Amino acid sequence: MSRLFAWRLSNNHTHSNLHMNSICPLDNVRIVLSHTSHPGNIGAAARAMKTMGLRSLYLIQPKTFPDSEAEARAAHATDILQQAQVCTELHEALDQTVLAAAVTARPRELSHEVFDARQGARELLRYAHQQPVAVLFGRESSGLSTSEVHKCQIIIHIPANPQYPSLNLASAVQVMSYELRMALVEQTTAHAPVTGSPANFNELESLYMHLETLMISSGFMDQDKPKLLMPRVRRMFARARLEKEEVQILRGLLTALNKRQ
Amino acid sequence: MSRLFAWRLSNNHTHSNLHMNSICPLDNVRIVLSHTSHPGNIGAAARAMKTMGLRSLYLIQPKTFPDSEAEARAAHATDILQQAQVCTELHEALDQTVLAAAVTARPRELSHEVFDARQGARELLRYAHQQPVAVLFGRESSGLSTSEVHKCQIIIHIPANPQYPSLNLASAVQVMSYELRMALVEQTTAHAPVTGSPANFNELESLYMHLETLMISSGFMDQDKPKLLMPRVRRMFARARLEKEEVQILRGLLTALNKRQ
Repeated sequence: MSRLFAWRLSNNHTHSNLHMNSICPLDNVRIVLSHTSHPGNIGAAARAMKTMGLRSLYLIQPKTFPDSEAEARAAHATDILQQAQVCTELHEALDQTVLAAAVTARPRELSHEVFDARQGARELLRYAHQQPVAVLFGRESSGLSTSEVHKCQIIIHIPANPQYPSLNLASAVQVMSYELRMALVEQTTAHAPVTGSPANFNELESLYMHLETLMISSGFMDQDKPKLLMPRVRRMFARARLEKEEVQILRGLLTALNKRQ
Repeated sequence: MSRLFAWRLSNNHTHSNLHMNSICPLDNVRIVLSHTSHPGNIGAAARAMKTMGLRSLYLIQPKTFPDSEAEARAAHATDILQQAQVCTELHEALDQTVLAAAVTARPRELSHEVFDARQGARELLRYAHQQPVAVLFGRESSGLSTSEVHKCQIIIHIPANPQYPSLNLASAVQVMSYELRMALVEQTTAHAPVTGSPANFNELESLYMHLETLMISSGFMDQDKPKLLMPRVRRMFARARLEKEEVQILRGLLTALNKRQ
């Protein structure tokens, strides 16, 4: 069974070295799947992880693993499946972690500190700079048990439609992995410099004068009652942040239209 | 084939009335899938949408639809599949939209305004308070064509691992749907909805056709060697996010210039 979902999404080039760094905090984030029933979900979770630069997968008593369906759904993330740690008990997967988060929704009598996906990812990353952390996902059918939640320090919920909050397991892994990457990106972001060649003040004023002249000579604008026409035109082009070449195109077009007989 | 992935995630109870509102902006967000090959991806995308409160799905020439695999992967989101609009051409799916975003990664010579998933979702939602917007996803194998991207006003990329940025199609829909919901959740405090009357797809296309016709008839553009002129013009006006009245002004001016003797 061969599936190629090579549907490509951009990486943010300003952060292209996120994963190059040998001490990338994402390497310290373990995705832990407890008692997963469907091997396809394990494969899809591995793919979701890899697209966001995570690679540490722990499986607690998966029903079927390894499995061809898992490999098919993993696409080019089979390396993550091959390196996955298969455990018998949760404490093996949480060994040495300094923060463990339970992704869950069920109301619990002894509620932990609850974060949404975004805040939870930020909290995890604060610790992952130094030492391992874990994000724990439960069974497809029934989620995490109370004793599993009690082995974690925080609860993370993914905001969802109250009328249908049932994310697919791999989709939940995708959202958490995405938020972990975003949390990392946030830490390193600076505003990207403007590229291209923006038109300068003088070029813009010449364009506006050119436009105004033709508006009057064509009868489109009444010189004595100009109303708010030019301010509107200025506002419109101001929003576009014209480049030099675009001003040239517009002026060339105006000249061509004006020359017609 | 019956799969139950009833893996439940929390809704944020403080926002539990998000979808109750009959004018919920998420109802104005169209997810548009172009030329999807695998019906399972369509079903998984429908599920992803519904978990975040979206429900408007458009399919442009899906290879196989309807399909049992799509229904299986949709789980309890088969209502979205049943209500999906199947289109022959992109312009049908973008009809009446006031902002269309292309989710893409390929480097393009004439880049549109590029947002990451989070900022793009916020931008879409600003418009969705009033009128329809669209998020366009391409083929699993090759993404969107250049002409498809040129029909959109902005590009959205999902930050990803540069060494493996290939999100599964449904995973990409999940991330965008999640960010759209998050944008709605955070909106109580920020990001004022767009005021004024943004021009819709049809009005913009008519403007571009008008411009192109005059460019050719005036000799400004060689019909046999159009180069990148129209894409540049589209890109420039895409950045401006034209309002209805501005389109009227531009077309009025073009008509006036064309009538001159």
